Amino acid sequence: MLGVLGGMGPMATVDFMAKVVRNTPACRDQDHIPMVVCSAANIPDRNAALRGEGADPLPAMAEALRRLEAAGATCIAIPCNTAHLWHAALQAGTPLPILHIAEAVTDALAARPGDTVGVLATTSTVTGGLYQERLARRGLSWRVPDPAGQAEVMQAIRLVKAGRAPEAAAILRGQAEALVAAGCHAVVMACTEIPVALAAVEGDLRARLVDATEALARACIQACASPTLADAA
Amino acid sequence: MLGVLGGMGPMATVDFMAKVVRNTPACRDQDHIPMVVCSAANIPDRNAALRGEGADPLPAMAEALRRLEAAGATCIAIPCNTAHLWHAALQAGTPLPILHIAEAVTDALAARPGDTVGVLATTSTVTGGLYQERLARRGLSWRVPDPAGQAEVMQAIRLVKAGRAPEAAAILRGQAEALVAAGCHAVVMACTEIPVALAAVEGDLRARLVDATEALARACIQACASPTLADAA
Repeated sequence: MLGVLGGMGPMATVDFMAKVVRNTPACRDQDHIPMVVCSAANIPDRNAALRGEGADPLPAMAEALRRLEAAGATCIAIPCNTAHLWHAALQAGTPLPILHIAEAVTDALAARPGDTVGVLATTSTVTGGLYQERLARRGLSWRVPDPAGQAEVMQAIRLVKAGRAPEAAAILRGQAEALVAAGCHAVVMACTEIPVALAAVEGDLRARLVDATEALARACIQACASPTLADAA
Repeated sequence: MLGVLGGMGPMATVDFMAKVVRNTPACRDQDHIPMVVCSAANIPDRNAALRGEGADPLPAMAEALRRLEAAGATCIAIPCNTAHLWHAALQAGTPLPILHIAEAVTDALAARPGDTVGVLATTSTVTGGLYQERLARRGLSWRVPDPAGQAEVMQAIRLVKAGRAPEAAAILRGQAEALVAAGCHAVVMACTEIPVALAAVEGDLRARLVDATEALARACIQACASPTLADAA
């Protein structure tokens, strides 16, 4: 049974679950993947903690993981990119395999060596290098917004968390287009709030956007189909 | 912490969670209600069981409830109307209060005594009288589709579960309009697949549609704000 360490943020978790359901070939309820989801909205702000301005989120994340274990989860997904800065710490504390969102994205990328990939993410995800090393290992170059653009991305992410996705969409669309204009062949929406805001984007930009939430959802469906990670429940 | 006995169907559970998030006044993740959700897609078909054609779903529902208890839930919601035919049996097996979707709907109805309320639901929900008694207690009349219309509603519900919501929408829209034409002041979407299909309906019909999923979501937010049901986590 897939365990989802969620609530970071709550709507991003809902978006992730919708993408698991939508990407599962199913004719009836019973064809779907059983999931247990902890939407632990109480987990302290990850970015504030990394700026040294807030409580450590690890204890609350570990507690949510305990709840998922108690409920019978057999593998774990975390639909929050920034939270993956604690991936190793969380993995060290549980025998359950925790899928990695940036691995799911780089595995799924249809990019050729030499291509440049843009990364729209929280400042913590960018500073922590969550994507850059993995892209470089695949022979890809990467680009992130300049400091003023990065500040706008952070503002947009906060707007989604406050239920103001349409305002966030205008900002994020501009930043994504700027990365494309600067030569990016693809732009990873590497914060799970971003695809919530950009759900309605179509046309040329849509074709270049890579949805980390969707990549993680597909990786989970594949993991749950594998006999080593799936259970009968 | 709100526990959600879900997976009946999986997309209806996602829709319910989205409505909990959207109806919660929040500026940041931490303002949201912590939830633990068991999307137990493996629960046997409720309608088939009630027709005597399938396995009893109660053991699998009870098992999902155990998982929610183990994960720390303090009150329970079930975003499936038909499953409420087992509400008393489930409630007898847990100390946690289980909110009732039909109570949430009738509590929220802005209808006046003498009004007629249409009920679009599974055949099991209709036959089980889940809504009729509660509407009658409020002095309201009720109406359901004729047998041919009811068969179409069931077909539409199966289409949503198979990921074919747009096809379902055309059928359900027709049945809802027929109930309005027959004198219904309001029409309850009393199966959680129905608002998934009719999400895009606007105008006159939208004003008459009552969303049972949304009513349950609002009742949960209220319950979790109450000091007797909410917990600190």
